[in-house]
Amino acid sequence: MRHDLEHLDPPFPGLGEEVEFRLETHAREGLFLYQRDGEVHAKPMSPFPGGLRVRVRVGESPFRYLFRLPEGFFGSHGLEKTLPRYDRFFHLLAGPPLPPSWALGAVFYQIFPDRFRQGRPGLAPKDGAWTLGGRPIRRKAWHEPPGPEGALEFYGGDLFGVVEALPYLKALGVEVLYLTPIFQSPSSHRYDTEDYLRVDPHLGGEEALRALYEALEAGGMRLVLDGVFNHVGATHPWFRRALEEPESPERGMFTFYPDGSYASFLGVKSMPKLDYASPLTQERFVYAPKAPIRHWMRLAHGWRLDVAHSIGEGGTDRENPRWLRALALAAKEAREDALVFGELSYDTIPTLRAHTLDGAMHYAGFAHPVMAWLSGRDHEGRPVDLDAEGLWGVLFDHYAALPLGLRQSMYTLLSSHDIPRALWRLKGDKDRLRLAYALLFAFPGSPAIYYGDEVGLSQPNPYGEWRGDPYCRAPFPWDESLWDKGLLAFIQRLVALKKGLLPLRQGSLLPLKAPKGVLAFRRRHGKEEVWAFFAPEGARLRLPRGEDLLTGEVLEGEVERSFLLFRPAPVS
Amino acid sequence: MRHDLEHLDPPFPGLGEEVEFRLETHAREGLFLYQRDGEVHAKPMSPFPGGLRVRVRVGESPFRYLFRLPEGFFGSHGLEKTLPRYDRFFHLLAGPPLPPSWALGAVFYQIFPDRFRQGRPGLAPKDGAWTLGGRPIRRKAWHEPPGPEGALEFYGGDLFGVVEALPYLKALGVEVLYLTPIFQSPSSHRYDTEDYLRVDPHLGGEEALRALYEALEAGGMRLVLDGVFNHVGATHPWFRRALEEPESPERGMFTFYPDGSYASFLGVKSMPKLDYASPLTQERFVYAPKAPIRHWMRLAHGWRLDVAHSIGEGGTDRENPRWLRALALAAKEAREDALVFGELSYDTIPTLRAHTLDGAMHYAGFAHPVMAWLSGRDHEGRPVDLDAEGLWGVLFDHYAALPLGLRQSMYTLLSSHDIPRALWRLKGDKDRLRLAYALLFAFPGSPAIYYGDEVGLSQPNPYGEWRGDPYCRAPFPWDESLWDKGLLAFIQRLVALKKGLLPLRQGSLLPLKAPKGVLAFRRRHGKEEVWAFFAPEGARLRLPRGEDLLTGEVLEGEVERSFLLFRPAPVS
Repeated sequence: MRHDLEHLDPPFPGLGEEVEFRLETHAREGLFLYQRDGEVHAKPMSPFPGGLRVRVRVGESPFRYLFRLPEGFFGSHGLEKTLPRYDRFFHLLAGPPLPPSWALGAVFYQIFPDRFRQGRPGLAPKDGAWTLGGRPIRRKAWHEPPGPEGALEFYGGDLFGVVEALPYLKALGVEVLYLTPIFQSPSSHRYDTEDYLRVDPHLGGEEALRALYEALEAGGMRLVLDGVFNHVGATHPWFRRALEEPESPERGMFTFYPDGSYASFLGVKSMPKLDYASPLTQERFVYAPKAPIRHWMRLAHGWRLDVAHSIGEGGTDRENPRWLRALALAAKEAREDALVFGELSYDTIPTLRAHTLDGAMHYAGFAHPVMAWLSGRDHEGRPVDLDAEGLWGVLFDHYAALPLGLRQSMYTLLSSHDIPRALWRLKGDKDRLRLAYALLFAFPGSPAIYYGDEVGLSQPNPYGEWRGDPYCRAPFPWDESLWDKGLLAFIQRLVALKKGLLPLRQGSLLPLKAPKGVLAFRRRHGKEEVWAFFAPEGARLRLPRGEDLLTGEVLEGEVERSFLLFRPAPVS
Repeated sequence: MRHDLEHLDPPFPGLGEEVEFRLETHAREGLFLYQRDGEVHAKPMSPFPGGLRVRVRVGESPFRYLFRLPEGFFGSHGLEKTLPRYDRFFHLLAGPPLPPSWALGAVFYQIFPDRFRQGRPGLAPKDGAWTLGGRPIRRKAWHEPPGPEGALEFYGGDLFGVVEALPYLKALGVEVLYLTPIFQSPSSHRYDTEDYLRVDPHLGGEEALRALYEALEAGGMRLVLDGVFNHVGATHPWFRRALEEPESPERGMFTFYPDGSYASFLGVKSMPKLDYASPLTQERFVYAPKAPIRHWMRLAHGWRLDVAHSIGEGGTDRENPRWLRALALAAKEAREDALVFGELSYDTIPTLRAHTLDGAMHYAGFAHPVMAWLSGRDHEGRPVDLDAEGLWGVLFDHYAALPLGLRQSMYTLLSSHDIPRALWRLKGDKDRLRLAYALLFAFPGSPAIYYGDEVGLSQPNPYGEWRGDPYCRAPFPWDESLWDKGLLAFIQRLVALKKGLLPLRQGSLLPLKAPKGVLAFRRRHGKEEVWAFFAPEGARLRLPRGEDLLTGEVLEGEVERSFLLFRPAPVS
């Protein structure tokens, strides 16, 4: 029994449109159950070759439905004997915002601009050129490891450098670059924006962004920027004015408390939180043509929204879904096929079901459980005892709970600028890193390579000192003698497979029987399948005739592997 | 490991209040994780005898939290190895509306007023006294079975009759009466209200209601009315005016479509749906002192809200949580300890988590799965193949998902005026009916006896003709020779147990190991436990020393039973 994105026609409907829902099943009769106006309505389905189908007008978003068959109720998490809770109904989103088709299963590459590549050395900030939190910034040499005070340390990467690196990225095969913030800011991470309309001159300014955008367009690639719209930097003129002139209109853009303190990102006073109840905040961040989310869609194809789970009113996340939706729609008004996904640091499901964004960083439903399984520790270093069966439960739970249209557009990752690098967490075990990346590319969603992971970049801090940021932000080693070229070729191959095989790029996720301790699943699209097996300690697998997708080898019968991407031969 | 309502201090906090959260556990360290402003915050817990505790200010409702222990995350559904989805966080409601303490585990008795007891024969409508849908109403004799057109058939029960029956109900031990609608209406079910401020004269008018209320108060009992506020009857003057005078202010109280048709309850034109976006609807049903939900709190202790899942704006369920909350708060403004629960015909969880009501009719999480298990059919007659393990999964899933404060105030039932009677579904098998009622009283929530179930009342329609309404609304047989007095004594005993044993009345629900095919669970409060076993085909149970609560017998070792409520002897 199967029902996923490919069984919807159209898969991305408008609100009020009629949709054909198909269920792959042997059953010859069944009811389509759907929620409308608080009631659960039933409509009989008709048989067609391969299953049952029904046409229904989709008048609500999210639209909740499932299938009633003689053997039970088939909802998002499988067959149940009694009507499942709404949590386990299928969720369909209708009407904007919906992800653009280019984003489904697209291969991302994340760049931290100060640390990826230097194009014009003269742009780099000078040592001590300004202060941050009362302390002078520091200029570091490219080969030096990051120290504990990362925000103060500048390596001098810039956007011209990214342009220079495009042949490398093109050869790797990546399709979309995601850059952490590029607008003028006093820190090297640039999450403390000072001017949203000015590309940081140390990164090459708007000229460099335009050069990058044009080079990407020419190469058929795309660019996603980091939208820091939960808070501004404390040096932003709007906040300075709000602070210094309590009667100024800017005062209302932030949340000041009676004792004079103000709401900020996780209590970090250099990042005062915007209040979206303020008409001026709304105007400047959502509605005005100069709102950055609109303005920069001339030179980029989408946004990653920083701290999206927290954006809201009155210093809280009040009306969070409303403002996420408004931001996404604003970007899409400026560029019709813009992609807007969120940093949703915890469970993404309630936010994404509320019809807000095109997807989210897949921490809770992928990166965290996968890396906990492979390393025995969570991203903060606490021991976790998770086995393959437990991991499958977590991965499938999140996948199944997602609205169907967003299952293939999740920004899916192992490493990022906010968590320790995968290789470091795996204590330098490259075999495990390969397994992890094979799993990333085999899994539904848009796989994202964090710059440098593909050549074996790790972190300088000892394993006992459990920190990602700032150590996970080391400069990319352009000295090729430092690269693990075998790893690079391996990841290149994964990229090619993802782009070449529809089951990997857009197929549904299905369970697959395997020996105990093996994480196994199928990806299926139409009649094509890919099987994936992962067993960090190695396992003996019994296979029908088929192809090892990573080596091209023909396999049949028993094989021993720690992981395998396998295409079974068509049954004739 | 255990965390439930009794581990909160206070259990029903105000918004912004500090709460002590306790976890029964052997662990000596742990973190309390809670959601605030979109982030998940952590606070270390302190050991105390029996577990861990922490004090946290509850600034949001619902407040979502769980416990992080060395072995994993302990959320509403048990221990997990990675951070559970928010769906499986504990949900705490803070601030009004919250259920009054009298409603926790209280024993209800549901009465359909036209069919329970006649006090004053002269009040009964005369045969053909008016028409309904163009057809004359019919007067039936008390002993006649209901025919297929129940709304037209009047047996002439009235509220004076209910007063007369109070000694019977008092002897049975019930604490709260829930009456289906009593306000002036043309049908015998009275869900098509004509005048919300007039107790139907055929039921004895306001005089009879006052007599009933005063008699109940004198006996320490309570009264819950049926609030039909999703729609009015098509003969209501407000709707007549809306229909006949398109320029009248009443027009806006309903949803008229361009073709002249109007929104109604499930398309039933005699029940036009109210539009809560209309200020006049809001005034008349929520805010005015004469709004029925306020007005009648002089003569009753609470409301069951009819079709609560559908109440909303513009002919839909839009803003449903907002209006349910407003209705509940209005009732509580008129009577501080009023109880307001909903008919939520499907999954109650999203609505109850949205902090709207004090509870709901427990169809999805109790009546439907239990009766499907015992009868092999769902409430609409379709075959269902559910075993004891599957049933436990469904029952526990709903219980665990409920906000803690509502777990003991769910209106929990087997039969009602809307589904076939339990005895009929069980094909007259009284042993199974006893098992079902024992399960009802053993389970968390407020058990509700549907009038007549306790003496063995069934329905006249043959088993092949699958309908509840109108056949489940037969008159109560006051001829005692028709009663199953053994059954009555049995249910009387269950009532006494529920009222006398804190674990049954307010204890948490915990799993209990039992042989395959046996539904088994524990109820626990403080250190007191009750064990419950249900095996329709009989089972051999191995027990420690303890008491059979239904017989008073001391048991130890192997016993064979189809069900058992058991109190293990204290371990000395």
